[in-house]
Amino acid sequence: MTSQFDKSIIPFQSGWGNIQRPTLLVNKTRAVRNLKGMITKAVRSGTLLRPHFKTHQLAQVGEWFRAAGVDRITVSSLSMAAYFAENGWRDITVAFPVNIRELPEINSLARRIRLNLLVESLPAVRQLSKQLQHPVGVWMKIDTGYGRTGLAADNVEAILALAKEINESMHLEFMGLLSHSGHTYNAENRKQVIAIHNAGLKSLQSLQQMLQGEVGARPAISMGDTPSCSVLESFNGVDEMRPGNFIYYDLMQWGRGVCEAEDIAAAVACPVVAVHPERDEVVVYGGAVHLSKEMLQDEKGHPSYGRVAMLEEKGWGNWLPQVKLGKVSQEHGILQGKIPLISEDLIGKLVAIIPNHSCLAADLLHEVCFFEGDQ
Amino acid sequence: MTSQFDKSIIPFQSGWGNIQRPTLLVNKTRAVRNLKGMITKAVRSGTLLRPHFKTHQLAQVGEWFRAAGVDRITVSSLSMAAYFAENGWRDITVAFPVNIRELPEINSLARRIRLNLLVESLPAVRQLSKQLQHPVGVWMKIDTGYGRTGLAADNVEAILALAKEINESMHLEFMGLLSHSGHTYNAENRKQVIAIHNAGLKSLQSLQQMLQGEVGARPAISMGDTPSCSVLESFNGVDEMRPGNFIYYDLMQWGRGVCEAEDIAAAVACPVVAVHPERDEVVVYGGAVHLSKEMLQDEKGHPSYGRVAMLEEKGWGNWLPQVKLGKVSQEHGILQGKIPLISEDLIGKLVAIIPNHSCLAADLLHEVCFFEGDQ
Repeated sequence: MTSQFDKSIIPFQSGWGNIQRPTLLVNKTRAVRNLKGMITKAVRSGTLLRPHFKTHQLAQVGEWFRAAGVDRITVSSLSMAAYFAENGWRDITVAFPVNIRELPEINSLARRIRLNLLVESLPAVRQLSKQLQHPVGVWMKIDTGYGRTGLAADNVEAILALAKEINESMHLEFMGLLSHSGHTYNAENRKQVIAIHNAGLKSLQSLQQMLQGEVGARPAISMGDTPSCSVLESFNGVDEMRPGNFIYYDLMQWGRGVCEAEDIAAAVACPVVAVHPERDEVVVYGGAVHLSKEMLQDEKGHPSYGRVAMLEEKGWGNWLPQVKLGKVSQEHGILQGKIPLISEDLIGKLVAIIPNHSCLAADLLHEVCFFEGDQ
Repeated sequence: MTSQFDKSIIPFQSGWGNIQRPTLLVNKTRAVRNLKGMITKAVRSGTLLRPHFKTHQLAQVGEWFRAAGVDRITVSSLSMAAYFAENGWRDITVAFPVNIRELPEINSLARRIRLNLLVESLPAVRQLSKQLQHPVGVWMKIDTGYGRTGLAADNVEAILALAKEINESMHLEFMGLLSHSGHTYNAENRKQVIAIHNAGLKSLQSLQQMLQGEVGARPAISMGDTPSCSVLESFNGVDEMRPGNFIYYDLMQWGRGVCEAEDIAAAVACPVVAVHPERDEVVVYGGAVHLSKEMLQDEKGHPSYGRVAMLEEKGWGNWLPQVKLGKVSQEHGILQGKIPLISEDLIGKLVAIIPNHSCLAADLLHEVCFFEGDQ
């Protein structure tokens, strides 16, 4: 059976000659360096690293984690959990409010692997209690300020009621409190990221104490996205962290000071198909269906869908300071700005687009090329 | 061999019980009505309808066109051409500047079907001349004001030089002049759409005359996207038209007065996973990887990623006037506004999201459910 997550792997053969269409380039040297740095931090704090695989969504990249000792992972959908279960992963958390329309798949997976789900409402917990045929772990999703999903951290009454309901269910094992401080993505600098993390942790610890008193066992605390896990040096008090984007990073993380340009491990190779020197534009094969419409603002406040670098022998170079991916339509990307050596000689050449959001580009592209970067 | 274009077809069984995950719902009654209306117009003008299949990208929907007498189609990539060739289509235009890195695939397809390509530069034509092993048709891409790709319509010298180069190539057959008036998507009303079409046609006709005098045979004219083909009643002077989006339409077309709400034939069913009445929000399973980040502005100028309707027995109802899909992240969608009967009873129910841009949603979703709407 093929999966929506299966990709064509394009072999890198001392050059980019195999690349014909928009292709995700992954610099393995950088990705593994990012991974090892995160593992070192986790070990130092005695925190379990349960990385989020929604960024790369690839069994092949998963093997780099496995080789580094990771055996528990996070994903963002049950379909993705099924794909990684097929690829040998045996302990998977679906970090998304449980979708009770997928109960047949939940039962099918829970029979084969240790499956952990997120809950935040009584109706969902009751449906699970009624229909589960195998044990699953459940985390209670707590909102510590992001405001997307989860029970508000100050809604102590509802949190306690849900914990009791979970404890009464035969197949549900209460794991603890899980939060996603997505508002770190709006932080303007590292100091703000740290402040958001610390405030969230304090909320969760106070709930942890309360629940330990009321329902017995000490619930674990799971928190930590790429901005906070990259910026913080210590995770004392956090039982597990779930960063995902750090394996590749991207322009969004770079713009918030979370990574350096040299940490970015993914870019999109795009063939040049048209050149318009009269208006400083180059058209590439690479559009919304390859890079997404994730938009950032350039220095002048205008839309930018990515930065542009030349492809060199061993990876992409520095991005060109006055060039951007200024427009995307379904399959077209329009590079705008001072493009060096702009002429029709570029037709058929490849350029590298550094994506605004590597998770979405990795999700969209159907072809991936891994290469060893410079050490 | 499976293709990136293969989707799971979810059977509609007198209800939505089979839908578990974000799924494209296609109202076949509306789609076929849209198709028949377009065919009627094309026949009346004596213009060939060569519909653009990049909107639906589905062999199953292609069969509705075939049943209505369509046998020539447009696609936006060579991969898509290969998919439709596998599904029995024998005359396909790839309406994207030819990507010469795909010459092996071009030769492979040109051996099996009538393949038509777009060219706009001497280097691309020369590469084709050198490497083609089978005849292909070529259209010269002319820019009549959109400013994305193509030779500027007033660059008569370059157009003539390219036409001569094409005529000298053994395997290239010069089809004519092709334009895409993408600026109709910025038109504010039907009158502006008509003006853009007429100005573009005039430019192409003047080039047609010039080329007929200089190189002999009369080049054909191919133009007409969904806004112009929907709004105009006559296509005199146009040899072929290539609308695509009209099969489904969407909010972008509706907003420009190009279609009625009752013409929109595609929506996305999304399961409700969390409810937050305290801030008038409902969280659905359905985010950027399902609907794209295509953004429109609501009445107040704030971002909107789609409109929201309830699912009824035979399709979605009218969209809720004061509700929108206000935020999307990778897998989450946040409905905001006055959601009727907002309570935790919604958990596990489906809502329908009317997409801003149906082409991108159709590209992204992995599951499709066809149903017969009311006549």
